[in-house]
Amino acid sequence: MHTAISMNKTELQDNVLSDFSEGYYGLSIEDRRELLMVLAKEYDLNRTYVRDLMKQYLGLQLPAGDKGEIGVEDDGSLSTFYRTEKHLRHALQPTYEVLFERLNTHPGGLKFLSVLRANILSTIKEHNIPSLRALDSYLKEKLITWLSPAALELHHITWDDPASLLEKIVAYEAVHPISSLLDLKRRLGVGRRCFGYLHPAIPGEPLIFIEVALLKNVAQTIQEVLWDDPPILECDATCALFYSISSSQPGLAGINLGKFLIKRVIELVKQDMPHICTFATLSPIPGFMSWLISKLASQSKLAEAETIDMSGSSKESTGSTFREDVLTAEEEREVLDKLGESTSGKTGIEIILNLLKSPNHEWSKSDRVLLVLKPILMRLCARYLLQEKKRGKALDAVANFHLQNGAVVVERLNWMADRSEKGLSQSSGIMVNYMYRLDNIEENAQSYFSSGHVNAASDLWRLVE
Amino acid sequence: MHTAISMNKTELQDNVLSDFSEGYYGLSIEDRRELLMVLAKEYDLNRTYVRDLMKQYLGLQLPAGDKGEIGVEDDGSLSTFYRTEKHLRHALQPTYEVLFERLNTHPGGLKFLSVLRANILSTIKEHNIPSLRALDSYLKEKLITWLSPAALELHHITWDDPASLLEKIVAYEAVHPISSLLDLKRRLGVGRRCFGYLHPAIPGEPLIFIEVALLKNVAQTIQEVLWDDPPILECDATCALFYSISSSQPGLAGINLGKFLIKRVIELVKQDMPHICTFATLSPIPGFMSWLISKLASQSKLAEAETIDMSGSSKESTGSTFREDVLTAEEEREVLDKLGESTSGKTGIEIILNLLKSPNHEWSKSDRVLLVLKPILMRLCARYLLQEKKRGKALDAVANFHLQNGAVVVERLNWMADRSEKGLSQSSGIMVNYMYRLDNIEENAQSYFSSGHVNAASDLWRLVE
Repeated sequence: MHTAISMNKTELQDNVLSDFSEGYYGLSIEDRRELLMVLAKEYDLNRTYVRDLMKQYLGLQLPAGDKGEIGVEDDGSLSTFYRTEKHLRHALQPTYEVLFERLNTHPGGLKFLSVLRANILSTIKEHNIPSLRALDSYLKEKLITWLSPAALELHHITWDDPASLLEKIVAYEAVHPISSLLDLKRRLGVGRRCFGYLHPAIPGEPLIFIEVALLKNVAQTIQEVLWDDPPILECDATCALFYSISSSQPGLAGINLGKFLIKRVIELVKQDMPHICTFATLSPIPGFMSWLISKLASQSKLAEAETIDMSGSSKESTGSTFREDVLTAEEEREVLDKLGESTSGKTGIEIILNLLKSPNHEWSKSDRVLLVLKPILMRLCARYLLQEKKRGKALDAVANFHLQNGAVVVERLNWMADRSEKGLSQSSGIMVNYMYRLDNIEENAQSYFSSGHVNAASDLWRLVE
Repeated sequence: MHTAISMNKTELQDNVLSDFSEGYYGLSIEDRRELLMVLAKEYDLNRTYVRDLMKQYLGLQLPAGDKGEIGVEDDGSLSTFYRTEKHLRHALQPTYEVLFERLNTHPGGLKFLSVLRANILSTIKEHNIPSLRALDSYLKEKLITWLSPAALELHHITWDDPASLLEKIVAYEAVHPISSLLDLKRRLGVGRRCFGYLHPAIPGEPLIFIEVALLKNVAQTIQEVLWDDPPILECDATCALFYSISSSQPGLAGINLGKFLIKRVIELVKQDMPHICTFATLSPIPGFMSWLISKLASQSKLAEAETIDMSGSSKESTGSTFREDVLTAEEEREVLDKLGESTSGKTGIEIILNLLKSPNHEWSKSDRVLLVLKPILMRLCARYLLQEKKRGKALDAVANFHLQNGAVVVERLNWMADRSEKGLSQSSGIMVNYMYRLDNIEENAQSYFSSGHVNAASDLWRLVE
């Protein structure tokens, strides 16, 4: 089947492509993986040819100028340079390039390529081999070109859209699941907006969509955003709050369409409703709890090891260099005083760990516990968002997404802003407002890219320092 | 100005791009050319870096298998291969790649790039230097990717479309100029269709559009197509006749969008009007007269030279190998008999040449002349379409366009099918019908690509042989 695709060179063959994609859709996951491995390994480069071209290129006389620049136009030799470079560019394209290009111009082909990439990504999870990674990285670059924002259409999604499109919104809403038809209708109704990016080749299926609430003030909890009726008239709104952004294509992972979507939506809202001057998000902090629990657990272990060491001979503990005071002395005292059982002899960290791991988030139901935990979790959450890094970027995926888009400030942390099961598990119910200011988007993004510096409101920095 | 674009690497700068394109639009043609030369020469490759990477790559141990294929996955060394190949791919991209990519995602950028390429093409006409040709070829490849048919929207253009769009149709109609508003309205009205390809990034401006007439039979003259009223009801039509296809962007020269447009239009018409089963064109033959006149002139010179030679000493004429009998003996006699002046001593070729070059196409107004010329011009026109080649493809640009799309047959030549000034100058008024058959499109195109063979109706071949 796949041999048929690589064979004919002169013209694209619609039937062969249709057969191939239909056949592929009919395969089991295992057979798809096998096919992808073959594609990755046997349809990459002709390395012998590439090497021959390179030797030929290196044999060419480089015109004057040691920086590789060319001053005078020397027609003959320059032509050869450009020609060989072009040949090299083409020779360095893997054979599967042809398949991708053909599928892209084939009806339904772009959608198929997105499915293909989703399968490649899941195959890599099982078999992380270089040829598959190369296949993925190549297809990703291609998809980025084809899905350039210039080719995407911004669509205002309303209750008048076809059910087949709205069904996609329900299915792919990834932040705050849509519970009922009424819930969906509310999100598309008065005081709300929903915008999606559509590609002409994948009609009726937004690649990514964003939900917006028109409010008087920046909301502090998701409950008030998802509230039954909009509390104010649209003409009184001064704030557009982005409360959800979801992608519908797992095969487009790592391709940042959200950035362009937010920018276009801000421009559009500004134009349509000049009275709206604040653009903010109410965002989840998906990685906070897993970071916090593993941090607390490791510190608790290190502390234990230290105690054993201390009672033994050596004074220098091997682990002690990784030790840090997760809790301040004051916090430790508060926890022990207010939440400790006098007999247990547990540390503050252990007490918090036990509480956070308690079934059904019992801790969140006791006012006494909440009172003690709130300042501690808020401080640690600020630290997590502002200071914890992965390769120089914010560790939290959502924070990183907004910061590299050019979100001006991490504005405010909101306690008990999402009391859903998901909200409590992910971030102990804390949510964050990022503020967008369009004029500074580029500048801020650049400072974040170069230094990793996170812009945040001063009271958040005070929490951390 | 252009330095600012190549500098910032981390993020795209909307303002800089806007400034650049506005600044560019403000430049005179001369200044634009100068800027393009700088872009082509100073923003291409870093050849020293490319060479270093190549030496590094050639130093890598190629895993077993002399065909350059890799059997066993050897993780470490393979990763290095893929990585270096990726680096090389990127290093071989000229610096102006960045500018093109950024402009493509910038509002109005795609249109700007199309203008840029139009200017590059006109600059090459003046200064045909390798660096400019490389710039053009690179931008062309980019535009082909961005303008993939998957990103284009097929739009049925009607009298209800905005005047700003219809204005473009009038301005860019390249085959049969639109003489008045009434003429335009007729082409969009009953018994007619007009379809255009729109790109989301260039709204309100079809990149290419095609005009269709719904008829009982394949039309023989353009006069009956552009006739005031449609002669039959739409429901009686059995033939969709494509009588004009025009591109609105000189910067997209050489990018074959027409092929996809025709295919999509045929599919659409088939779906909407199942009673239509014939898809044909009524096409101009733009290169016929200039080919014929230069052929006649050179043969006439060669004949003259031969005559002089004959009267001289040598029997072997230097030019004689290029001599051919453009006219058959019978034709020659006909022309001399019916059109020659007994005293002049001119050859048949000379007589025809004089007639064709006569001012205001006087020859076309005399029935006596037409009667003699018709069989000769029709035969030579069949030869021109079916046998004259340029790099293995049909010499006539329109013929080549349809044949490589997969037009099944050159069906019929039509005498005096376009009596307009343009029609007479281009092709002595002859027009041709190409017949499309969707099921064979790929197959025919392939045979044309591989052997250059032209499919034609048998009576046309008989004319030639």
